[in-house]
Amino acid sequence: MDVELGQFDSRGGEWLRGEGRRSDIVISSRVRLARNLAGFPFLGRASEVQRQEIVDRLQPCLDHLELAPQTFYVDLEDTDRMLRRFLVERHLISRELESSKGPRAVAFGSDEVAAVMVNEEDHLRLQVIRASLALDETYRLASELDRELERMVEFAASSRFGYLTACPTNVGTGLRASVMMHLPALVHLKQIERVFRSAQRTGLTVRGFYGEGTMASGDLYQISNQITLGKSEESILDSLQRMLPRILEYEDKCRDELSTRGRTKLEDKCHRALAILRAARSLTSEEAMTYLSAVRLGVVMKILTDVALPRVNELFVLTQPAHLQKMEGRALEPDDRDVRRATFVRQTLS
Amino acid sequence: MDVELGQFDSRGGEWLRGEGRRSDIVISSRVRLARNLAGFPFLGRASEVQRQEIVDRLQPCLDHLELAPQTFYVDLEDTDRMLRRFLVERHLISRELESSKGPRAVAFGSDEVAAVMVNEEDHLRLQVIRASLALDETYRLASELDRELERMVEFAASSRFGYLTACPTNVGTGLRASVMMHLPALVHLKQIERVFRSAQRTGLTVRGFYGEGTMASGDLYQISNQITLGKSEESILDSLQRMLPRILEYEDKCRDELSTRGRTKLEDKCHRALAILRAARSLTSEEAMTYLSAVRLGVVMKILTDVALPRVNELFVLTQPAHLQKMEGRALEPDDRDVRRATFVRQTLS
Repeated sequence: MDVELGQFDSRGGEWLRGEGRRSDIVISSRVRLARNLAGFPFLGRASEVQRQEIVDRLQPCLDHLELAPQTFYVDLEDTDRMLRRFLVERHLISRELESSKGPRAVAFGSDEVAAVMVNEEDHLRLQVIRASLALDETYRLASELDRELERMVEFAASSRFGYLTACPTNVGTGLRASVMMHLPALVHLKQIERVFRSAQRTGLTVRGFYGEGTMASGDLYQISNQITLGKSEESILDSLQRMLPRILEYEDKCRDELSTRGRTKLEDKCHRALAILRAARSLTSEEAMTYLSAVRLGVVMKILTDVALPRVNELFVLTQPAHLQKMEGRALEPDDRDVRRATFVRQTLS
Repeated sequence: MDVELGQFDSRGGEWLRGEGRRSDIVISSRVRLARNLAGFPFLGRASEVQRQEIVDRLQPCLDHLELAPQTFYVDLEDTDRMLRRFLVERHLISRELESSKGPRAVAFGSDEVAAVMVNEEDHLRLQVIRASLALDETYRLASELDRELERMVEFAASSRFGYLTACPTNVGTGLRASVMMHLPALVHLKQIERVFRSAQRTGLTVRGFYGEGTMASGDLYQISNQITLGKSEESILDSLQRMLPRILEYEDKCRDELSTRGRTKLEDKCHRALAILRAARSLTSEEAMTYLSAVRLGVVMKILTDVALPRVNELFVLTQPAHLQKMEGRALEPDDRDVRRATFVRQTLS
């Protein structure tokens, strides 16, 4: 089933709803599985015709997958750039899949919990993303979908290495597990670099809100496993889950410190941020992220009582450029986007 | 009659009311006359006893002056520092008179239009300050009070030089006329230095909100005559009044430019400033002046419609440190002052 912009939930994917375990810090948990079809070369060596064959082979399978509550399928070769960018902002496709060429596609459930990218780096990348700290449930759903797909197609695998993937870092389980965390207190108290170093020592990677190479705007960080080869799914999830309580505890400690030693400064920062978001007539993307971060902290610390957490989470996505242009129904120059962004944020938070 | 802190108008002097000619730009017009008593040495050469004699000689005269609607008299030698600072912030005494020692005093009307400092640089300095562009009326009232005083005491004067004063720059008329202007557009478009240079070339001086050597915070500038010797009162007022329309026109032009070419940025700046003033939990004096300036511009340009101009004018004075401490009834550390300032501004502008 094809998708129109108007069919998307105007509040963003379900993973932004801000409910669940440690939702004061953890925005979402995400699992992705990299798979390739047996009998087809990896994409780096596949011809245009073979790429199209992969898409054609997978499309009916994805239709059968019955992603909840309704499956959308987007032929990305046929799509205009604004919808592709919109899908990136939505975390439904990667920036790589957006900007690459040739036959490629994505299927996703209308609740945006599960998505399958076709012809990204691998033939197939399955992603499940859920609100709050919920890695086990997230992995469980990804596994189910993986097994369903495996009943329909044969995946390239080796008895020695496990699943075969285009890049050796994904060989084995093809599993990447990550959590998106909001760490404003660690940033404010300049402790975030220590967290990064400590995460890296345990084989984890830290990236920004929009993945590899993106700035961590809004104090949002994705923490994920680095290595998949030679490890079981359980041990990958386990190494991430062992690290998370330490980061949570550290952020908690920093929030406590801000709340006691610098209470007034903290309240001042949160109240000003909300006031600016409610008053600005022009707002850059970076400003929006910065002030939303302070507002989010204010909401979870009960300093700001008249804003709902889901509204703040959603704005991190809904204020992105392609989203604003979608709302406006046309391409906008950066200055006009800033005005549109300010208007939208003002209306949402008033 | 002696004065208690509680007797002051909680909205500040009448000159802050923001009504009258060109009150969109001109906060107030001020005239001061420097006079010395015949038969007494200038203060630089006067003994402690002589200084006391001057105070004693002038006090009954000041009581007779009947400043409207009620005359207050403050013996500054007897006063605690907080009241003296409060009077400086009120523009009723100079910083010099505040920090000097020995017998000295001030008398002023409870509407704070007229004030007479005793033993500042000269034995007597009479000041009249009125809202908006009103130099002629202001000078007229100062002259009347000057004549009334001259009926009671003899002023030191020479037929050749006119009134004699401690500093040669005041000899002759002893007149300094000034206007306090709000020039945010000239500052924003980086044209203010040109105005200064141009004013200086015509024998005028530009100073900040609190006189000589103070920073021009809040985009507020006092423009006054430099030279009094060899000029009549009329020609002094005339040279200032010739310059003022040019500054007003230039600020008007810059406001027009901001309003057309950068309308959104201007609206954004004004709305954010008001939002911050209404939300902050801690506010430095400098921040208050900066945001009040943007709000004042927004009010006179009808961008901000739910704030009254007098409230903004008054806050420039009422948010000063001694005023905050007066409200609190005790000395406050800078951090506590910032919190008190934020609370007061929030309440006033809500």
